[in-house]
Amino acid sequence: MGEVRTIQINESIFAENDRESAAIRRQMTEQGTLFLNFMSSPGSGKTTTLIALINRLKEKLNIAEMDVDITSTLDAQRVADRTGVRSLQIHNGGLCHIDADMTARALAGFDTKDVDLLILENIGNLVCPAEFDTGAHWNITILSVPEGDDKPLKYPLMYQVSNVVLINKIDTLEYFDFDMEKAKERIHALNPAALIFPISAKTGEGMDDLCEWVLGEVEKVKNAG
Amino acid sequence: MGEVRTIQINESIFAENDRESAAIRRQMTEQGTLFLNFMSSPGSGKTTTLIALINRLKEKLNIAEMDVDITSTLDAQRVADRTGVRSLQIHNGGLCHIDADMTARALAGFDTKDVDLLILENIGNLVCPAEFDTGAHWNITILSVPEGDDKPLKYPLMYQVSNVVLINKIDTLEYFDFDMEKAKERIHALNPAALIFPISAKTGEGMDDLCEWVLGEVEKVKNAG
Repeated sequence: MGEVRTIQINESIFAENDRESAAIRRQMTEQGTLFLNFMSSPGSGKTTTLIALINRLKEKLNIAEMDVDITSTLDAQRVADRTGVRSLQIHNGGLCHIDADMTARALAGFDTKDVDLLILENIGNLVCPAEFDTGAHWNITILSVPEGDDKPLKYPLMYQVSNVVLINKIDTLEYFDFDMEKAKERIHALNPAALIFPISAKTGEGMDDLCEWVLGEVEKVKNAG
Repeated sequence: MGEVRTIQINESIFAENDRESAAIRRQMTEQGTLFLNFMSSPGSGKTTTLIALINRLKEKLNIAEMDVDITSTLDAQRVADRTGVRSLQIHNGGLCHIDADMTARALAGFDTKDVDLLILENIGNLVCPAEFDTGAHWNITILSVPEGDDKPLKYPLMYQVSNVVLINKIDTLEYFDFDMEKAKERIHALNPAALIFPISAKTGEGMDDLCEWVLGEVEKVKNAG
């Protein structure tokens, strides 16, 4: 009888991804670059939030941005046009996520040596991106008020892997049935350590606290590197 | 030297899915059941729209609903509680989509013989669900106003495979920078045949036109079956 071999394909893929993401994180720490991975549903305001964040920090930090999309260059162009920082558009060929290997290949052609803050705008999707560690120091999820306070219950992995949650579009709270306390409870039930920042990228509310946190994390990476 | 065989895994998966989805569609037509597949971002108002639609049609039609989620039973419960129709929760084990095989397995345990309208609430995701024909007669995408009018540019496949687009939450148009004409143009550039219904599932605006369209499609399936 022939020999039967069993290969754990899933485990293998994720183990390989974990090795690659750890290498990216180590490299980023060594060169003193804080690497943040922003994830969310489509239309939650990722790009607008990143533009608001970058414009508040670009005088203090050297910032670069990488933007993942299926085919368009809309977001990278918007970020570059409205902030003036370097932005790299990554086309992922229709995939629903970006993994560490794709991130490494993008970084190979994008000089980040002198960058203090590297931002990755992941693809708009609450399922697949949560499964792949990109090598970022922090995963950050944006939950926008119009989406509803039940999203943590429905996409739990995203909230388990994200230690920072931005609750965006709080300027529209009065128009939607969104219970801020319930949202926070649901996030903390999945991830007790999660930091939560209620913000409006549009009006600027809450952005100062977020900027202060980012500056503190940049400092920590510089001291660790 | 050993023989080398090459298997086109991707093609094979999609070809198999196409066979299974065609079989589901044939079965639904034969039994006189209109089968609609609703897709969208998380938080675009799929469940609220379905509840509003079902409550308007349940006196005229025998309706059943299937709800795909990763782990929760929130949506199926909401639909069942607020409409009284039969609802089946499908847990897809963390996957980002539902395919024809999963649909067929769900249907095997869910009697739809006397159902006039079968509704599938797909998982909230604009990428993966677009790749898998579920066997529905129509794919319907919901684009909500707070998500922005640029979504067709960023998730083109979803709009190419959806011949009906509901633009939801139009009661919030004044609070967001959403250009209705631009949204329609962008949808029609990807899919000239797409029917577009601007609606507010919350206030009921536009729901009559949608109901009329659904009733017409039920009639067509009954005549074809």
